[in-house]
Amino acid sequence: MPKLRQSPLSLTIRIDISDDAWIGHGKIELLEAIADCGSISAAGRAMNMSYKRAWDLVEETNQIFGRDVVQRQVGGKHGGSTALTDFGKELIKRYRRIERVAATAAYDDLAALKSDVTRRKRIS
Amino acid sequence: MPKLRQSPLSLTIRIDISDDAWIGHGKIELLEAIADCGSISAAGRAMNMSYKRAWDLVEETNQIFGRDVVQRQVGGKHGGSTALTDFGKELIKRYRRIERVAATAAYDDLAALKSDVTRRKRIS
Repeated sequence: MPKLRQSPLSLTIRIDISDDAWIGHGKIELLEAIADCGSISAAGRAMNMSYKRAWDLVEETNQIFGRDVVQRQVGGKHGGSTALTDFGKELIKRYRRIERVAATAAYDDLAALKSDVTRRKRIS
Repeated sequence: MPKLRQSPLSLTIRIDISDDAWIGHGKIELLEAIADCGSISAAGRAMNMSYKRAWDLVEETNQIFGRDVVQRQVGGKHGGSTALTDFGKELIKRYRRIERVAATAAYDDLAALKSDVTRRKRIS
């Protein structure tokens, strides 16, 4: 696969599902942290977020899509931990892909904006 | 020019200039309102924003790029009003173009996400 050009400026995206519901980098980073840490509370700590706040964000995401993004693992080696559901994993993949194709498509304009900022720094 | 397909879900973008400086839809919509209203205070009112908040956002944008995005108009028919500088107009155009190409590039993934939401509504 050809290596993607690194975007000149970072593009953060928010996907607006309805007037009061969206998916942004906050919810996605939290899901990624849950996958890494194996628990909502540990993921919240890793992101300097209270357990309540982390739970609320997970629950909000469940509500938006009408299906769960995380599941409890019972028994076995990982008993007691929390993992992403297949849908939760798919959601992260889609968000990151949208972010990547968006940044790639906007490459030239981002480069032009970056040169505006760089020019200023050189002058000051 | 071919008509662009309407994006299935709205994509809001934030361009991160540095760790603590970004351009998002808030600043861009304010600049558009200043262009429409001819004054920062009227633009702020139109956006339910205090004059101080509106000024702070304009000043922050000036600082990020090291050049002014608005200018006072003195004398003539529009004396006493505030207009965008050429750079301010260019910034809006670039931001909106980045938003458009990003949404176009991410079309298929946005459509898939939208169908996830729609499916849920049909079930509930």
